[in-house]
Amino acid sequence: MQKIQFQLPVDEFPTKWYNIIPDLPEPLPPPKEPEDGHSRMEYLAKTMVGECLKQEMSTDRWVPIPEEIRERYIQAGRPRPLYRAVRLEKKLGLKKVRLYYKREDLSPTGSHKVNTALAQAYYAAKEGNTTLVTETGAGQWGSALSYAAKLFDLDCVVFWVKSVYDWKTDRRTLMNLFGAKVYASPSKETKTGKEILAKDPNSPGSLGIAVSEGLEYADTHDGCVYCLGSVLNHVLMHQSIIGLEAIKQFEIAEDSPDLIVGCLGGGSNFGGIALPFVGEVLNKKRECEFLASQSEAAPNLAKGEYKYDFGDVGEHTPLLKMYTLGHKKDMVPIKADGLRYHAAAPLISLLRHHNIVKAVTYPADEKAIFQAATMFLQSEGWLIAPESSYAVRAGIDEALKAEKAGKERVICMNISGHGFLDLTAYKEKMGLP
Amino acid sequence: MQKIQFQLPVDEFPTKWYNIIPDLPEPLPPPKEPEDGHSRMEYLAKTMVGECLKQEMSTDRWVPIPEEIRERYIQAGRPRPLYRAVRLEKKLGLKKVRLYYKREDLSPTGSHKVNTALAQAYYAAKEGNTTLVTETGAGQWGSALSYAAKLFDLDCVVFWVKSVYDWKTDRRTLMNLFGAKVYASPSKETKTGKEILAKDPNSPGSLGIAVSEGLEYADTHDGCVYCLGSVLNHVLMHQSIIGLEAIKQFEIAEDSPDLIVGCLGGGSNFGGIALPFVGEVLNKKRECEFLASQSEAAPNLAKGEYKYDFGDVGEHTPLLKMYTLGHKKDMVPIKADGLRYHAAAPLISLLRHHNIVKAVTYPADEKAIFQAATMFLQSEGWLIAPESSYAVRAGIDEALKAEKAGKERVICMNISGHGFLDLTAYKEKMGLP
Repeated sequence: MQKIQFQLPVDEFPTKWYNIIPDLPEPLPPPKEPEDGHSRMEYLAKTMVGECLKQEMSTDRWVPIPEEIRERYIQAGRPRPLYRAVRLEKKLGLKKVRLYYKREDLSPTGSHKVNTALAQAYYAAKEGNTTLVTETGAGQWGSALSYAAKLFDLDCVVFWVKSVYDWKTDRRTLMNLFGAKVYASPSKETKTGKEILAKDPNSPGSLGIAVSEGLEYADTHDGCVYCLGSVLNHVLMHQSIIGLEAIKQFEIAEDSPDLIVGCLGGGSNFGGIALPFVGEVLNKKRECEFLASQSEAAPNLAKGEYKYDFGDVGEHTPLLKMYTLGHKKDMVPIKADGLRYHAAAPLISLLRHHNIVKAVTYPADEKAIFQAATMFLQSEGWLIAPESSYAVRAGIDEALKAEKAGKERVICMNISGHGFLDLTAYKEKMGLP
Repeated sequence: MQKIQFQLPVDEFPTKWYNIIPDLPEPLPPPKEPEDGHSRMEYLAKTMVGECLKQEMSTDRWVPIPEEIRERYIQAGRPRPLYRAVRLEKKLGLKKVRLYYKREDLSPTGSHKVNTALAQAYYAAKEGNTTLVTETGAGQWGSALSYAAKLFDLDCVVFWVKSVYDWKTDRRTLMNLFGAKVYASPSKETKTGKEILAKDPNSPGSLGIAVSEGLEYADTHDGCVYCLGSVLNHVLMHQSIIGLEAIKQFEIAEDSPDLIVGCLGGGSNFGGIALPFVGEVLNKKRECEFLASQSEAAPNLAKGEYKYDFGDVGEHTPLLKMYTLGHKKDMVPIKADGLRYHAAAPLISLLRHHNIVKAVTYPADEKAIFQAATMFLQSEGWLIAPESSYAVRAGIDEALKAEKAGKERVICMNISGHGFLDLTAYKEKMGLP
């Protein structure tokens, strides 16, 4: 029988996160203060988790994962299996190309976001905090942080862009079940929110407003810290367990990928699967290429400019050197809402700048994306998130290209989440009754 | 670090199903023909999968699982892990009681139903059929069969009770994505459906009508077979992989359950986890008790009468000896719709008759059920199906009872499915905003 599923024994789950900073081809450009006289770093230092800020600057290649976090990772179902996509290969008529996928969709809240949420919640609790605060757009990050807070017996407050809050009732219910307080943003909980509501009681909100509200809330309430779900170095480091597991699982599979494909919005799931492999490439231990799959709606890595920019619309973060579309960029709505972000993580951006990571984009109508997702469902049987479908689309396209050229190729796609809360998007995009 | 997750290596996935028939304390009362002169067995023999009918009567203790089915089981994520509920134990203040749970919620369509769907689809294809036909009520069985049909390159036709079809849009989308044709029943696809619609164009349908339509469709279309998702011996045998995995996983955990708890509607998930353990009890290899958790809305095993009855409202099946509420019984709606069935599987019924399986019921308002599910979510982190929540409720209650009595106890709860498509039910029952 052909091997399909590659498990890593629970006992072999990684004991350290991988930090790529010491292995980068050039030093990571440091964050900068904007020239308006207000220090963003001091503000963030006040509102963020101390250990996370420390990790953000760390130059240690390997950072030990505390036992309490490892235990929660294992409770959350890690290690997650690697699969060989034998039926998808057959469907595509592949003879020379082998396709694999990594299963972050098995996460308790349905996305890879729990990998950093658990770490942040642990450190927040250890530092004596009682409440995690954040903003959420698509809802995956808010769900993951609600989950992690509850698992470490903390409270959680989520400011959710009102236009999304209003219709994503199921995700909201999930957060509420984990005990989180979820506010439609703009809300009456903050000065920022109240001012906006006074001017426009029907404001649909925005990610910028939600971030502002969250930061203000954390700043004005005792025992509160603000948590960020992507872009930053420490977030990508927490996500490195995806790639570290995959490296060991490919050894079990007695195979080796020469292309890693992930979707990319801010870069946390892409970084999670790719960076441990990139590290081995940079240390000449393996050869492998890396492809980020994006939407034309937010082609930050593919078409952005490599420059210093804010991480958020509201200009609360320091300036970070990133491939960016500009932090005020308007982006059309897409179903893969988690990919709608103006810039790519500084770590991924630097690797793109050195041509180690490449990017591809797909039209914002997402037809090609949902077709790939449906082909994956019908062959492999798993319902994946719209975001993850970008990875599958690019994986399929690269496989067909290599096959046509008669080139052997081993491709690994990262499935960042499941699609059980995205069935209305599937219905609409696939024109179902 | 305390062990939480017990995986069975993929290579050790069972190679045989377990059939309890030769181990029963008395022979299973055979199906009987009703006295109206119409042979139900001949009718079923025409419309059902041949190998499944053969397995229904088999007296072999071990039935080899064909390689093609094993491969699909592994692709569907088997073996599924067993978990120790350490955080739930802590929440309940347990010192003497250990709680475990088995994770069928990790199934591709979100329930244990795929375990028999894959087997039935394989045999149907092998016998030259092109289309699987079935009825569905709650929708789990329809999703699982749609999935299995696609994985074996077959077509699938599902007749879905119209009153449920109309509002469970997400489950319908899932079936459609797998390529199934899903008809609201009564439909215009059958004579039965057309006659009912002629009398009442707004008929909400019923499970009885949907079964009639499915059987008629299978009977009148070439290459079509009718598939059943619970109650019958072969279905419970296919499900035995749940318990067979659990037996090996408890060995890995170096522990042994003395109580197995599952929810019970028709009996397929309960039989799946319990029967392999029951077999060892009957063969004096272990001591263990078995508890079926039911709704007051359908307390077939707890309060039914042990007698011959039809398996369906429409009287298409032979008479089976079961604990039954009567096949015409009206049952109030509950969120755990998969438990609303009038009778318990003949195998489980016989074991109940011999006092080997016991039953407990919970009020149809389901408050206690959703509270248990939410406690499970907040401690273990997993969102489980309303049906599975009955197992958790009974597991918690038995744990507290034993703890109070100062009695050591090892309880295993079967989590039959996930709740990502049941969040509106959680919202309503937990009174969330």
